Amino acid sequence: MFELHSRLAADTLMVGEFELCQLLIHKDANYPWFILVPKRPKVTEVYHLSERDRMQLMKESCILSEALVDVFAPDKINIATLGNMVPQLHIHHVARYTTDVAWPNPIWGAMSAKDYPQTELEHRIESVASVLVGEDFQVS
Amino acid sequence: MFELHSRLAADTLMVGEFELCQLLIHKDANYPWFILVPKRPKVTEVYHLSERDRMQLMKESCILSEALVDVFAPDKINIATLGNMVPQLHIHHVARYTTDVAWPNPIWGAMSAKDYPQTELEHRIESVASVLVGEDFQVS
Repeated sequence: MFELHSRLAADTLMVGEFELCQLLIHKDANYPWFILVPKRPKVTEVYHLSERDRMQLMKESCILSEALVDVFAPDKINIATLGNMVPQLHIHHVARYTTDVAWPNPIWGAMSAKDYPQTELEHRIESVASVLVGEDFQVS
Repeated sequence: MFELHSRLAADTLMVGEFELCQLLIHKDANYPWFILVPKRPKVTEVYHLSERDRMQLMKESCILSEALVDVFAPDKINIATLGNMVPQLHIHHVARYTTDVAWPNPIWGAMSAKDYPQTELEHRIESVASVLVGEDFQVS
């Protein structure tokens, strides 16, 4: 049975669910940072997914990327699946700006996490969720 | 018309071509580090690709990942599309080991590039190419 890894659960809040993936927002206020987690147990690499799930992941990744562009108007989208610390397959989607604290470096390990003002975090969740509703996405 | 970005051309050697992507190997000997570059002009984000190209990219990414597992038996595959320095869409595929110089951090910006002994670079190219032939892959 699928269960979200404890480290991901601790570092994020749930935004909602696509058909394949849970959508999480990282609690680090330095960047609009979202994470897709396929609801499949024991999967650690993209190629472990079935053919159908691989295609669905690509679809959900692109829907999310376009939503982040709509909501945040970033200069670049960074997408990565690393898993060196948390083995459960998860795919980072980060809206980057040439003015953000880590630019042009990758965000992982670049800066300590920064707390969100509570209202800003809720606002980001609602903004992204409202764009995604209608895209086979269920708000939590 | 598609043309490989000068920075990618300088940092890599060509291994061959899939239907959609050129396959490059990075000249940094610290890691088995391969890069897929979709042969589409002016594309900087995955979601810019057509529906068909998105699915083909997923397919080629998984074929490459499985080849890297076959050849290098790594502890983890890291996949990322950043593009903060080189805007042309390119997708890194890195075979990672818990014993490599940057583990568990991402490789980008972690260490200075290390030169390959020439024979080792050629050997890596040939090893990966030989596993990919038959997978709609043409050796350069």
